[in-house]
Amino acid sequence: MLPNLISQIKSNNATVCVIGLGRVGLPLGVVLANCGLTCYGIDINSERVSQVNRGETPFKENGLDEWLNRARKLGKFHATIETKESISRSDIILVTVGTPTTMQRCMDYSQLHSALERISEVNLYGKAIGIRCTLVPGTVSNVIVPYLEDKSKLKAGKDFALAMCPERILEGCAINELFSLPEIVGGINDVSNAIFAELFRKMNPKKDILYTTPTGAELAKLFTNIYRYLSFALANEFAMWAENYGEDAHEIIKVANYGYPRCNIPKPGFAGGPCLGKDGLLLDNTTFTSMVSTAWKLNEAIPQHVAESIRRRIGLLYGKRIAVLGLAFKAGSDDTRLSPCAKLVEILKGYGAIVPVHDPYIPDTLPIDKALENPDVVVVANNHPEFANLAREIDESGCKLIYDVWGIFDATSFKKAAYMRLGRGT
Amino acid sequence: MLPNLISQIKSNNATVCVIGLGRVGLPLGVVLANCGLTCYGIDINSERVSQVNRGETPFKENGLDEWLNRARKLGKFHATIETKESISRSDIILVTVGTPTTMQRCMDYSQLHSALERISEVNLYGKAIGIRCTLVPGTVSNVIVPYLEDKSKLKAGKDFALAMCPERILEGCAINELFSLPEIVGGINDVSNAIFAELFRKMNPKKDILYTTPTGAELAKLFTNIYRYLSFALANEFAMWAENYGEDAHEIIKVANYGYPRCNIPKPGFAGGPCLGKDGLLLDNTTFTSMVSTAWKLNEAIPQHVAESIRRRIGLLYGKRIAVLGLAFKAGSDDTRLSPCAKLVEILKGYGAIVPVHDPYIPDTLPIDKALENPDVVVVANNHPEFANLAREIDESGCKLIYDVWGIFDATSFKKAAYMRLGRGT
Repeated sequence: MLPNLISQIKSNNATVCVIGLGRVGLPLGVVLANCGLTCYGIDINSERVSQVNRGETPFKENGLDEWLNRARKLGKFHATIETKESISRSDIILVTVGTPTTMQRCMDYSQLHSALERISEVNLYGKAIGIRCTLVPGTVSNVIVPYLEDKSKLKAGKDFALAMCPERILEGCAINELFSLPEIVGGINDVSNAIFAELFRKMNPKKDILYTTPTGAELAKLFTNIYRYLSFALANEFAMWAENYGEDAHEIIKVANYGYPRCNIPKPGFAGGPCLGKDGLLLDNTTFTSMVSTAWKLNEAIPQHVAESIRRRIGLLYGKRIAVLGLAFKAGSDDTRLSPCAKLVEILKGYGAIVPVHDPYIPDTLPIDKALENPDVVVVANNHPEFANLAREIDESGCKLIYDVWGIFDATSFKKAAYMRLGRGT
Repeated sequence: MLPNLISQIKSNNATVCVIGLGRVGLPLGVVLANCGLTCYGIDINSERVSQVNRGETPFKENGLDEWLNRARKLGKFHATIETKESISRSDIILVTVGTPTTMQRCMDYSQLHSALERISEVNLYGKAIGIRCTLVPGTVSNVIVPYLEDKSKLKAGKDFALAMCPERILEGCAINELFSLPEIVGGINDVSNAIFAELFRKMNPKKDILYTTPTGAELAKLFTNIYRYLSFALANEFAMWAENYGEDAHEIIKVANYGYPRCNIPKPGFAGGPCLGKDGLLLDNTTFTSMVSTAWKLNEAIPQHVAESIRRRIGLLYGKRIAVLGLAFKAGSDDTRLSPCAKLVEILKGYGAIVPVHDPYIPDTLPIDKALENPDVVVVANNHPEFANLAREIDESGCKLIYDVWGIFDATSFKKAAYMRLGRGT
């Protein structure tokens, strides 16, 4: 039975459902639909489902609008809240729900558990289940397999296929990267591997498929993100050192990297967001000395460092107007989950400052001219490309100090206000 | 006066001395001599000086023999213990002495201070001094400039030139990299920058010269090495996690890196040596959370982890014969300074084991057949290329266990003995 799925995928006779119409699931479902497979996009948020069925994308993702509307015209993509029915009709079930962390910095598996419950309500015989969430290593083997076998009274690998297939796209580049990135497939057995390899090759027949164990796939996802997160933490540590010594980290990092084959330090700045800001936690609770917890402490301390640097420069922040430009966790994004910009705003409010916020991608923030009304300080907290042209507007706002988290300006851009930059000593 | 030095260098009328005929100074002096400048190589070790003057290189460095002998034939390179005279005759003084750490993990500046003392005994007027040691940031500006000005009663930058010009070559590739790597020049003023730029361009007219402040140059050197060292620490942390979860870090790292644009995790293994093993210390004593001290703790714990893994596998190590293959700090090297292999040997001896050691590059170790006489365990501690062909010899030595620190073998290479690998859970 299961091997038949491979030829069904080949001949576009397989139906897929994607559970979770978030930043991972929606692009994936839409691209698979464009590649010829009938795809249900399942979400419990009925407003989001209607929005998607009207052809509107619920978040910013380059090119997603067009691909969504093309899939709808082909009649291949349907968003729905009818979870059980859609799962039941599908041959392949892709779980793309979020696995965020709680306020206590534990994993919040509620969405995953609820998805598994729904999945276990249908007859899984002959189906293939792909897990595309970020998980603590071992979750597929030690939790998902026994749970589904127990509920279904079927044998995983024989009666239904199962694989951990982590997502590693860059928000904003999801569509392009779905076509281009290699896929890690951690199937519980060979037939599970073969099914998901076939599925992903629908998107690009030349896609590299990298096989590993389910736990290996869970670890590989975490290794990937932790590697990046640590390099950002190191850049931030270098920023602190440069400030310490009265130097400019941006300049020194440029010098260290230039033409040198063994050095690739990123720029200092805010590091966070829904992936990098939490994935390290999944490997955090081990007994040995942990780089990742150190990286987390360091990156999470940067917004406080920015607030303190401003306070040391201008004194009491109580009652001061500190305009913050940028609220999303990274350039070009409208995603504020675990955003260091949002953390900075809260810290400044905690100091008693008045904090008008502008972000061109986030509708419920202020327009730029309102945010820049009589500020004492302007913090350029995010490196949205739109900000690069704001130097004059900021300078003429009457502010006394500009704090440039990403070093997108330099001191000479400002005639009237003082200029500070993360990583530059004064 | 100082600007004349630039044309003197151009026309090969400048004399250079290199203080310290170590792994940094000797290749540099020899290459500059080959490029047409008369060069004195100064060392306090008279045995080393005679050796070099006989055309013998005191350590392993690819191609150095030939370049040394070519420089000697040209009559351009002379090793000497006559420090004062040679400095006095030189227009350019390059300080390449070691700045190791003490047993208390403080900087040991004795060689640097003694070099500065010798330098200050001659008339520095019109000379240029280049510092090519690894230093705590600020040392050039806050120590070397005031010391030399005080002793010479001259004005740095006006009467003599001074620049921090850090070395960033890879041991073993020193000659090639002297020609190819960009040079960081942190002169105390423009004329200092211009003189050293001219000097380095003798080696390659197209060499990139990256200008910064003296402190910036000190920091850039540390950033370069710390970046690498941290990436090794992260690989080792990943190795611990993979072992925890019963997976193989080598395989997972391969999967995480393959074709992925944002991931470049190195292989796990021993990380140490005279540069990486200590350079982080120079940025260690700051007050904020430090990635580099965490990296150091982690990398330094790996030899202990190897010893413990063996002990857990075979029980008491007291009286056991544990052959260690590899003593140098890295592949292809004969350098044992701060080598994790040497640390492992001491730890195993501390457990009461008998530890025969073989390293093909280190003459006072045992030959391979002696080292492999009736061992209980063989640890392949270094990834010298010579070791790749030893699988059968090791397997037939009668040992019960092979521990492969670098993953240069796999389990199938061994028929008789059990196989363990750093980063692979069992």
